[in-house]
Amino acid sequence: MIMGESLRLLESVRLALNMKGIPYTTKWVNFFEIEPEMRKLGLPPNEGAWMDLKYTVPTIYDPNTQRAVTDSHKINTYLEDQYPDTFPLFPKGTRALQAAFDLTYGQMLNTIFPSIVFNIYSTVCKQDKAYFRTTREAWFGDVRLEDIAPKGEKLEEIIKAWEKLLGDIGGWIDAGGPGAGYFGGDAPVQADVDIVAMLMFLTKIAPADHSLVKSLETAGGGRWRVYLGEFSKWTARSA
Amino acid sequence: MIMGESLRLLESVRLALNMKGIPYTTKWVNFFEIEPEMRKLGLPPNEGAWMDLKYTVPTIYDPNTQRAVTDSHKINTYLEDQYPDTFPLFPKGTRALQAAFDLTYGQMLNTIFPSIVFNIYSTVCKQDKAYFRTTREAWFGDVRLEDIAPKGEKLEEIIKAWEKLLGDIGGWIDAGGPGAGYFGGDAPVQADVDIVAMLMFLTKIAPADHSLVKSLETAGGGRWRVYLGEFSKWTARSA
Repeated sequence: MIMGESLRLLESVRLALNMKGIPYTTKWVNFFEIEPEMRKLGLPPNEGAWMDLKYTVPTIYDPNTQRAVTDSHKINTYLEDQYPDTFPLFPKGTRALQAAFDLTYGQMLNTIFPSIVFNIYSTVCKQDKAYFRTTREAWFGDVRLEDIAPKGEKLEEIIKAWEKLLGDIGGWIDAGGPGAGYFGGDAPVQADVDIVAMLMFLTKIAPADHSLVKSLETAGGGRWRVYLGEFSKWTARSA
Repeated sequence: MIMGESLRLLESVRLALNMKGIPYTTKWVNFFEIEPEMRKLGLPPNEGAWMDLKYTVPTIYDPNTQRAVTDSHKINTYLEDQYPDTFPLFPKGTRALQAAFDLTYGQMLNTIFPSIVFNIYSTVCKQDKAYFRTTREAWFGDVRLEDIAPKGEKLEEIIKAWEKLLGDIGGWIDAGGPGAGYFGGDAPVQADVDIVAMLMFLTKIAPADHSLVKSLETAGGGRWRVYLGEFSKWTARSA
């Protein structure tokens, strides 16, 4: 049911499908294959996407409704509406608040992205190397991929911002009251799926001695490793 | 019950008290009176508050419990827990998500603050003028109060950021589905109170021809004037 992404990174749709128990198969695509695959599904170019990307993955094609949906938030909202008797990721009264959570998600991505863009480059296939280098170097004002990751004082600032953000997120979860382990309280919701997908992304793409991964391991007394562990039952891959 | 603030500005606690139907009286204080009043109530200095402000208003003193609470979010959470049979601002499963909404609230405040800091100055009492000027000029790197409001290209950028933020907020509310007029769906929650308090703040402190007020009037086809109007039944002042 899902068409995964070349880098096997942001898995929020796969998590949602697993949590909801919706069966699917995955088609992996490389960067150069994204646009032709999306066009084949009849999808128009995105508007206002991150970094103005016109075609993105994940995208799903649902054979039950013969609909294609792109953008992980739109996909997970679609799944919720189309399959209402499955694990709820958008309980009543939380849809607008969870949409607003985009701001946190974007802030996480913007904080870690410069530090891992070169790590991503090393994972893309041969045909994608030139495309990835040209576009990502342009995003950073024509700085060479090898030089984008912040160093020295700048890196210290990023680490501080990342730890502050993790601290804030932990504090917000704790604001749910005693026993709250998730944004949804005692059960995870889409905001948790966002966080988990982002943390999985970071820990998969960056080595264990990467400064942001090290921060993640120690922040909040190690709570994030526990939090990630809670989702392991939903990260097993389907076909 | 409430000790209001010298500028009669951010009224999220007063809105909450009115929505919840909790009776209160208001004591207005000027800036120079804040710290001594807070100390009288036995409150310790804030930690990690906006701009590192040690003592802030609004603050409440609840004679029923003989407790003083400062910080509007903490106050409204306290009111919800202490008076559970009143209008709910934090429905089940929304507390963590509404805490995360702080990021949006902070972004609104940071976007408009430089443009209105001089307007605020003109409303503070004579004894507060020097304190306000010295501290606020320091916040902006020793720029004179008269010169802090952005102009020209910088102002265009701020207006764009403000309109983008209003557009995002409107989009998030709409993500609640057909008929959703608030972050809570068909009834307002704390996130709505945050937005309304901020928009009231802007429209009270800045003149009608201020560029950010003009943006607010036209953004989203005039939806924000309607949204503010919905709250007029709760903005009437108690004693």
